[in-house]
Amino acid sequence: MTADQATAVDVGALPVRVKAALLVGKDFWATTDVPEHGIGSVQVADGPHGVRHATGEELGLNAASPATCFPPAVAVGCSWDTSVARTIGETIAHEARSLGVDVVLGPGVNIKRTPLCGRNFEYYSEDPLLSGELGVAHVNGQQGAGVGASVKHFAANNQETGRMRVDVVADERTLREIYLPAFEAVVKRSAPATVMASYNLVNGLHATESPWLLTQLLRAEWGYDGATVSDWGATCDPVASVAAGLDLQMPGPVAGAVAAIEAAVADGSLAESDLDRAVRNVLGLRAWVAEPTELFDLDAHHEIARQAARACAVLLKNDTEVLPLDAAASIAVIGEFARSPRYQGGGSSHINATRVESALDAIRDHAENVEFATGFTFDGSGDSESLRAEAVRVAAGSVAVVFAGLPDAMESEGFDRAGLSLPEDQVALINAVAEVASRTVVVLSHGGIVTVEEWHDNVEAILDCFLLGQAGGAATADLLYGVANPSGHLAESMPKELRHTSAFLNFPGDHDEVRYGEGVFVGYRSYETTGVPVRYSFGHGLSYTTFATTGLVVDVTGSVSASATVTVANTGSRPGRHVIQLYVAPPPGAVQRPARELRAFASVELEPGESREVTLELGERAFAYWDVADHAWVVPAGDYTVEVGHNAHDIVQAQAISLEGNEPVRPLSRTSSVEEWLDHPSVGGEVLIGTLVRALPDKEAALIQDDPAVLRIMSSMDMSKAMTMFGLGDAVPLLDELIERSARPN
Amino acid sequence: MTADQATAVDVGALPVRVKAALLVGKDFWATTDVPEHGIGSVQVADGPHGVRHATGEELGLNAASPATCFPPAVAVGCSWDTSVARTIGETIAHEARSLGVDVVLGPGVNIKRTPLCGRNFEYYSEDPLLSGELGVAHVNGQQGAGVGASVKHFAANNQETGRMRVDVVADERTLREIYLPAFEAVVKRSAPATVMASYNLVNGLHATESPWLLTQLLRAEWGYDGATVSDWGATCDPVASVAAGLDLQMPGPVAGAVAAIEAAVADGSLAESDLDRAVRNVLGLRAWVAEPTELFDLDAHHEIARQAARACAVLLKNDTEVLPLDAAASIAVIGEFARSPRYQGGGSSHINATRVESALDAIRDHAENVEFATGFTFDGSGDSESLRAEAVRVAAGSVAVVFAGLPDAMESEGFDRAGLSLPEDQVALINAVAEVASRTVVVLSHGGIVTVEEWHDNVEAILDCFLLGQAGGAATADLLYGVANPSGHLAESMPKELRHTSAFLNFPGDHDEVRYGEGVFVGYRSYETTGVPVRYSFGHGLSYTTFATTGLVVDVTGSVSASATVTVANTGSRPGRHVIQLYVAPPPGAVQRPARELRAFASVELEPGESREVTLELGERAFAYWDVADHAWVVPAGDYTVEVGHNAHDIVQAQAISLEGNEPVRPLSRTSSVEEWLDHPSVGGEVLIGTLVRALPDKEAALIQDDPAVLRIMSSMDMSKAMTMFGLGDAVPLLDELIERSARPN
Repeated sequence: MTADQATAVDVGALPVRVKAALLVGKDFWATTDVPEHGIGSVQVADGPHGVRHATGEELGLNAASPATCFPPAVAVGCSWDTSVARTIGETIAHEARSLGVDVVLGPGVNIKRTPLCGRNFEYYSEDPLLSGELGVAHVNGQQGAGVGASVKHFAANNQETGRMRVDVVADERTLREIYLPAFEAVVKRSAPATVMASYNLVNGLHATESPWLLTQLLRAEWGYDGATVSDWGATCDPVASVAAGLDLQMPGPVAGAVAAIEAAVADGSLAESDLDRAVRNVLGLRAWVAEPTELFDLDAHHEIARQAARACAVLLKNDTEVLPLDAAASIAVIGEFARSPRYQGGGSSHINATRVESALDAIRDHAENVEFATGFTFDGSGDSESLRAEAVRVAAGSVAVVFAGLPDAMESEGFDRAGLSLPEDQVALINAVAEVASRTVVVLSHGGIVTVEEWHDNVEAILDCFLLGQAGGAATADLLYGVANPSGHLAESMPKELRHTSAFLNFPGDHDEVRYGEGVFVGYRSYETTGVPVRYSFGHGLSYTTFATTGLVVDVTGSVSASATVTVANTGSRPGRHVIQLYVAPPPGAVQRPARELRAFASVELEPGESREVTLELGERAFAYWDVADHAWVVPAGDYTVEVGHNAHDIVQAQAISLEGNEPVRPLSRTSSVEEWLDHPSVGGEVLIGTLVRALPDKEAALIQDDPAVLRIMSSMDMSKAMTMFGLGDAVPLLDELIERSARPN
Repeated sequence: MTADQATAVDVGALPVRVKAALLVGKDFWATTDVPEHGIGSVQVADGPHGVRHATGEELGLNAASPATCFPPAVAVGCSWDTSVARTIGETIAHEARSLGVDVVLGPGVNIKRTPLCGRNFEYYSEDPLLSGELGVAHVNGQQGAGVGASVKHFAANNQETGRMRVDVVADERTLREIYLPAFEAVVKRSAPATVMASYNLVNGLHATESPWLLTQLLRAEWGYDGATVSDWGATCDPVASVAAGLDLQMPGPVAGAVAAIEAAVADGSLAESDLDRAVRNVLGLRAWVAEPTELFDLDAHHEIARQAARACAVLLKNDTEVLPLDAAASIAVIGEFARSPRYQGGGSSHINATRVESALDAIRDHAENVEFATGFTFDGSGDSESLRAEAVRVAAGSVAVVFAGLPDAMESEGFDRAGLSLPEDQVALINAVAEVASRTVVVLSHGGIVTVEEWHDNVEAILDCFLLGQAGGAATADLLYGVANPSGHLAESMPKELRHTSAFLNFPGDHDEVRYGEGVFVGYRSYETTGVPVRYSFGHGLSYTTFATTGLVVDVTGSVSASATVTVANTGSRPGRHVIQLYVAPPPGAVQRPARELRAFASVELEPGESREVTLELGERAFAYWDVADHAWVVPAGDYTVEVGHNAHDIVQAQAISLEGNEPVRPLSRTSSVEEWLDHPSVGGEVLIGTLVRALPDKEAALIQDDPAVLRIMSSMDMSKAMTMFGLGDAVPLLDELIERSARPN
């Protein structure tokens, strides 16, 4: 690293023209260099699950230097294992370094608001805590190995439909609790080299032009001191962006942008200090520049990808313990995905993989008697009836493993899906095979979550592999044959129907505006609160061994914190990894909150018979909601339930604790509502009535004393207005002493 | 009427002080009189299901002149019969006239957004069409008999929690499609004497200070020329209200208001023309002043109330045809509601009824052998176990009719409910009785809808009476014994659980802001779109006879209109009234719409064996949504399904029609998105690509020709920006000819 290069440049001495030029990319993948001032380029490349190192104005999205394709974020999310994310980040850094890349664009920590989002395969989860922890680990792994990261897409970039012009209308609480925490965690705990401003607008402003996002939140509140960069082509007004806090506009050149920035400084509409700030941040990226290293070890990295993939697949169902398969038995492998694996998504993240293993080949490494039938084609070409008939013939009487999923053409960056089902020919295939096979296992490959209702009950087992990267085939075979034990858990709920999803009524929005009408009730936060049943809950995942969770003890460690200890034991006969999921259920209150929220998790490897006691800390944020009046995280006093769940729905241990909370004293005023007055703990109710009754003339006093409900029906009226309206205007000044008392702590 | 009094006053000649005074009430129930200018008061009284004529500063909400208590709007909504609403309006007018009241405040046409709203008993329905038709009929009935109406509470006043300070955040489409149409219908078709501005804020402005609501919508768009009046105590800023379009501020006096208005005119901050407009509108109310008539006919009006009540009750369930009851059989009447009927709600609408009949007494008029047990008390006092035990003893072996419901204390203007269940002791009672009775009928009395899950399957029949007014007891007995045939239909969905209701996640809002996050998906529009099951759908209602619906024929009568004809036959053995419910299901499109919406209805009385052909017209609004970009009602071209339903879920006849629609041509521009360009019907796709390829140098042409998807991945980017970003900047001017062509109709 050449950390001193950034500070070696005297920014103040640079001409405005040069400074403006530094804020716009030199080309698609490099920052502008100014050799006469000793300033070189910084080389960036797409990520996040591998290095997509294209050069120059390269537009064909699949042409790039070969690199290892690791499991995309959708799969890493299911690992619930920060070490998986960290290792991937670290290994990507080694590859980037050998390819001469200084910054790899990733990870993406956007929340899966709707399963239809075409880019969900690039994101971890519907839950901000899980997304944030994995993002932190990825960035720390990558940057620890010397390559800058870019946490993206900041912020609320949750759909592809109209992504460059859609205005996300979301209230602050929803943003603070759901869409921002993963970014906040990465920024605060990983200091990513860059934060990428997204294409969309948030509450009326382009993310690239939002002072609230880019300066207030990111810099002032979260203390970020890296460089903000636009998503590629996301800037609209080059000057407004700089003023709002955007540092680097990519890709370059942007027609007229440099001249516009220069002119704005000249006419005073852009402060030169804003320009200098941006230049300093862009130059700061030079700290990530280093000499390329030798070519990475292809085999070793492929093996890392395989190990990671093993930790990601989710065993959804395993009736009659059909899995793991018996290597000595003959099996029928059905489905084009077995031969032509789908292991990553389409768009800017598309890796030119160093090699690809098919599950079919890998299965043949495990078993002798393997028959194969394609069953269907990706593009629907061919005679689907005869393909199905052949598959049925192959599967009859055997254990059948059907590789189904979503073909490339059905999901990608750039557009959203229209539905959640598998293609009809695959549904028909699964059901036809299940009818004749002795037992049927379905292996799924897809980026966005799919529904399984049309065939779920007809098969014995489902291994959901999502997209497992280039070594996914081998990893899948390892899992099917029990060489590895499945340990992934869903990072998003699997709904029964699209129309049950909480964004359904507000997606993709009308006329370039999408209202996040469901608020904080995203994913399991919706299902667990409204009671709409899902097929598999967030957090669900089976194993070939069994685990017991016992002895939950929760200690209150402060007014807004607690510590939970629980014992986990492997009660089965195979080694396995268990994920402890800790949820918190809040007390009822004035602010509507999800029934429970994931607040901590941990991953534990256990040998058969082994048990371990694990302690998880719960801080303020584990109990808080974002209060829009106080503009702060608030923990109301009350009883919270700390729960250990097998998933977000099935709670296996729970303990109630009472917290003091941190709610601020809210003093009364003359314009506080009648209800606020009547309900105030120290000066409300009888104290208030008594004060008024004592001081008022008989007639008015009688009015209040006889029927305090007279006031209650006007409960939301200003107290002084209500008193005036009911002829008690003279008594309004009597409130002032009570107001003074109300400001004192109880 | 003295219609000329209004114009007899030369408003321009009145001193500002006098004009200001005219805008504020004289007292709680009268407008300000100015004898020296020949201006008298207008006397108003609360409605809407009877005249609540209090005088002066009367605060005790139950003290008023005796008047007939008709079924409140919650019940009238269930009649689906405009003649019921019209008759009630007309009869109220006769009573008002005899009491010296010129304007009766009602009807309330707010939408039941959540079943928890404490004032739902004053509103008709969750559906705007049904609410509007009944509101129109009520106003036409009342004003046709010479007494002014006040349609209220304008607008989006859908909860009691924080009603005077809550800001309703709702998008324009939601307001236009759901919360405004009933007001629009009443204003346009009934010219109500007054429109009452509500307590709440709408999108940041108090309804009493909203120029959009009070002037733009009401006057400019809907052509209203009556007087706007504040809900009692709803004004905050007396000057801003006048400027926004509020005419009359009630009740008076309002401390400082007159002086403030006078001062504002003096310093020019309020235009005198605004003041004059308001004065003219207030003086216009004098047209409703008339001499009091003689006392109305108490008996005749009571009978009208009884007839109305018969049309409102909804027979939800009638297994084994336990109803109608056999007058010769002995029955056990259980429940305090049988003896002490609940027939109206609490708050400003509370009528001092001229008489009240209990169902118990009325049943004794029908049957000889009637045993009674209270079963429970309203306030939970007494030993509920022994009350239940007594009821069980009385019911054992008999047909039991349990009168259950919500006591007064559980719902009222002023607060919202916390849940939807019946009180626990009543649930226990119903289940205990059902276990020992030969058959069990439950009669329900309540304002807001209740859930019945805890006991529904244990009883044979449910007659939902809501609140039936002072003659409800007799009407209920008439229905139970088959003297009258139930014909009401639910005007709101009966959910299985509170958390299934579409406002659940956004109610009652936080910190005085409630976001209508569910948008237009209110009530059945939500359930039918998301597939969440309900206990009974909107529109459900049984009869003692049977009806057959056949022969639906839908003719397209224009580009945005159709005419539906259907034959209804009474196929049973009793006379009965059938409600034809016509729904329209829209084609899929870019704007997310409810699965179906009620677009027309009609009520038909049929003798046994009689059949009738009924034609219902469907105009533009039956097919349109509110387009926020065009600011207009838009009917997209496409296939619509016209459906006849027994209710919103059970469709019995359907026909698809193809409409030309009225979508405007939307010409392209350089900043139209890539997708808009590619998808444009006349100049998109191949035309566009061809134009560019022909004109570009080889390299750039090849880029587009080889892979048009290069553009698609940037589908929401401005076309000119995308071309520039991909090195095709020189070709941007080529778009202009296509832009010109795009503006021509196809």
